Order: sequence, then C-alpha cells, then structure tokens
Amino acid sequence: MNTDTLILVTNDDGVEAKGINELIKCLKDLGEVVVFAPDGPRSGMSGAVTSTHPITYSLLQKEDNLTIYACTGTPVDCVKLALNEVLDRLPDLLISGINHGGNHAISVHYSGTMGAVMEGCIFHVPSFGVSLMNYAPDADFSEACRLAKLIAAKVLKEGLPDGSYLNLNVPVVVPVKGMAVCRQADGQWINEFETRKGTDGNIEYWLQGEYIDHEPIFPDNDTNRLNEGYASLVPCTIDATNHAFMETLRQWNITDL
Amino acid sequence: MNTDTLILVTNDDGVEAKGINELIKCLKDLGEVVVFAPDGPRSGMSGAVTSTHPITYSLLQKEDNLTIYACTGTPVDCVKLALNEVLDRLPDLLISGINHGGNHAISVHYSGTMGAVMEGCIFHVPSFGVSLMNYAPDADFSEACRLAKLIAAKVLKEGLPDGSYLNLNVPVVVPVKGMAVCRQADGQWINEFETRKGTDGNIEYWLQGEYIDHEPIFPDNDTNRLNEGYASLVPCTIDATNHAFMETLRQWNITDL
Repeated sequence: MNTDTLILVTNDDGVEAKGINELIKCLKDLGEVVVFAPDGPRSGMSGAVTSTHPITYSLLQKEDNLTIYACTGTPVDCVKLALNEVLDRLPDLLISGINHGGNHAISVHYSGTMGAVMEGCIFHVPSFGVSLMNYAPDADFSEACRLAKLIAAKVLKEGLPDGSYLNLNVPVVVPVKGMAVCRQADGQWINEFETRKGTDGNIEYWLQGEYIDHEPIFPDNDTNRLNEGYASLVPCTIDATNHAFMETLRQWNITDL
Repeated sequence: MNTDTLILVTNDDGVEAKGINELIKCLKDLGEVVVFAPDGPRSGMSGAVTSTHPITYSLLQKEDNLTIYACTGTPVDCVKLALNEVLDRLPDLLISGINHGGNHAISVHYSGTMGAVMEGCIFHVPSFGVSLMNYAPDADFSEACRLAKLIAAKVLKEGLPDGSYLNLNVPVVVPVKGMAVCRQADGQWINEFETRKGTDGNIEYWLQGEYIDHEPIFPDNDTNRLNEGYASLVPCTIDATNHAFMETLRQWNITDL
C-alpha cells in the first residue's frame, strides 16, 4: 500500500449507505482513505451549497488508514469543508459514491454524487463519481467496486486534465461486457409528479417521473452503453461554455447596445 | 404586444425579491408572463430537486397578461412543476432572475438561478438567466432590465440551439460599455468558511469565501469582461462531456476489463 496516497471519499446517500461502505473496503490497499460524507441522504442535491445556516461535522471512526467523518451539509458542502478545514493537504483523488442508482445522461446535473465530484474538480483534485444502476439499499456492489478500484488506480497514475472529471456508471450485469468511454446521453424526465391530497386538503406534488431518451439509436452515449451491459465512463468538463455557439451569438449584433 | 407569446419567469431569490419584480415589469410588452418562483430565498440551490417530501404551489396574482405563482420547492422544482402541471403549453421563453448578485464563472454550477435555466433548456424551452453584480435587496435593476429585455426579444426571434442556454451577467456600471459574448471564466472560491462557536459549544461553519480567478489576464472570459464594465453573455451547454478528452481516455486501455 502506498501510504503517501490520500483518497477523499464522499457520496450523497449518506455515510451509512451500503454503497460508500463497500467502496471504502475496496480502496484500502490504494492509500489512506478519509471519508467525509453527509450524515444522511442528500440525493438530488446537485451542486447545492448551504448558505442560510451553518454546518457542522463529527468524527465517527479513526484507525490506521481510514478516518470517517459525518457532516450536516450537502455533498458539495462536504467537499468544501473537508478541503478547506479538515484535510492537511489536497487529496490525490476524490471518489463520490458508490451511488444507489444511475447518474448517467442528464442526471449528472441533478445528482449530489456528481455535484461533489465537480467540487473536487474545481479544487484541482482528480475526481470521479461511481453509480450503480440499482436503487436497492442492499444492492450488490461487488462489480461496481471492482471497476471503481480500477479507475481509481488509473486516475492516480495518469491524472486528469485540469477542469475535467469522470462519471462512471455500472449496470447490474455481472460481469459487465466492458468499459465504454462515451458521451452523456440526451434525454429528459417526463410526467414528473404524482399528486396526492395533503392533510390540509391541498394538492401535494411528489417528484417521480419517467426518463425518455431523445436519441434511442445513437450508439455512443452512456444510456445506450449501459443498456447494452457495458459500464459507461464519461469525461466531463467544468467549463459549461458552448464554444461552438459563440460565433453565431456574436452575429446577433447585440455587442453594441 | 404579441399575445401569442408566453414567457415563464422564475428565480432563486424568491417571488418577493426586487429583481424578479423589476424583470416582470419590463417584459410586459413582449407577451403573456407567467411567474412561477420559489416562495422564499433559494440561493445556492444549483440543480437541486426535492424528492424526500412533496411540494405545493399557490396563486398570488392573476390579471390580463400576468399570472404569479409561489412554490415551496427549489428553482428546478418550480420549472418542473410549471412545465409538467401548470402551463397549458411549453412557453416560448424562460427567464430566470434578475438575480441579486453575479452568477459568472463557476457560479453557474452553484446558482439556483442557473439551475432553473438548465431545467428550461432540458425541456427544450429557449432559456436564459440574468444576474446583477449587486447583492443589495434594493439594488438598481434598470440597466439589467434593459439588457434582459433586449436578449429576451432576440431569443424569441432567433431561438437557441437545442441543449444550449444563455448566462447573462450585468455589472453595476450604468450604462454598460457593451455586451461581450465570452466564455465562462476559470476560478474558484478559497477560505470558504467562517467558524463560530455554536450554542452547544461545538464549532459551526458558515459558508462565505473569496473568489480567485485562475486566468487573470485572459481577456475573453466573463469575469474579466464584467470587471471591464461590459455585460457578459456566455452560451452554455447541457452536454457536460469533455469531447476533446474522450480519445485520450480510450488510450488508457480500460475498455477491456
């Protein structure tokens, strides 16, 4: 084990979720692991930060090469607090997950798991997220762990370009057919709310919804690859600019007002 | 006025903020306006969605061409609920703002204002966000309104490419020197927490922080343009894929496991 290697682990399902605990076990021979994760579920928190009230954290466990903290904040709060206040130095790697449920396609924009990954990337820490396409609390994470460890070792060795992070999703197929480097699929959720009458008689809206893919026959996106039984690995970027559209936008002649 | 034009307006500062109310006034001769905004402040909510409890909404005001709703959810919840359950058809335009405070550079990833814009974009609604670099509750929004209306009219006429949205930021300079079509600046916050001793004696962490730019002399990013007195207009994309890095990633030889 390389005792000089420091790995920060977080998630959005909370520090007690099976996914993060399985991940911790499989990382132990890659380096020292510090877990700094929410103290409960924070799914769908995206890149949200807490600015209206303070956050706190507590030490849950400390042994030779594993330290576990729980934090009252969002996944992004966790990364910010760990990197600003808790760790002595920037880690060599940040892993967020293993998420209970997929974060492929546009889910990258809603996912607290991936919000934490983006935050690591903003801090120039090589960062990736790993999600298993199974929401069950007792899902089998063994294949996802195997792949997460493989990517972790690769990222530690190769690094990642500044401003880029990885989004790894793993289907429930065991073993997976392979690892597909691909792009984010285009799709959206529809029929997103279930309505119920609340105790006060007013209608309450519960988020649910069904996902539809806008490019069902395109081969090289994460949704399709996952459906085919591959793990998907999408390199992502912090720079949200649509560079290709800039010149067209300049033609709008709005630069002189 | 084009009575066939339907404009959805939301924000993250809440339906009572000055910024959104000034925006509504300046849009009235562009079409019918429906406001569907959070019932209170939701700054820093990014693309967060509410999945652990239901959300509700209520009608605040209805007159000829202006309807105002308040919603208990996040900015993204607002857009989802408006588009799924409230509006009879997709609007021709979504505007989020005017935000009290800038959302340039990487703020696009934390901002509830911009989370709402991304959600409109995911629904194929031409969408943009507008933010004034002044956090004051009573800031002067007149210049930001003038520019927002100009961009609104342009987007209604020209449309936006599917999967793309706009991020408009306005400095406090009046009048602005011009409109700069540019890219998202690279930077990050540092020293992000102020610590205080809580009532229970434990340390509480309050988010604050100072922003640093990683490319101080690069001319063509939003931060620099704003500092020069220009309004910045960044075209953004829902596709987070780093396409340029895909081929390098394939060279890692992790496709066969």
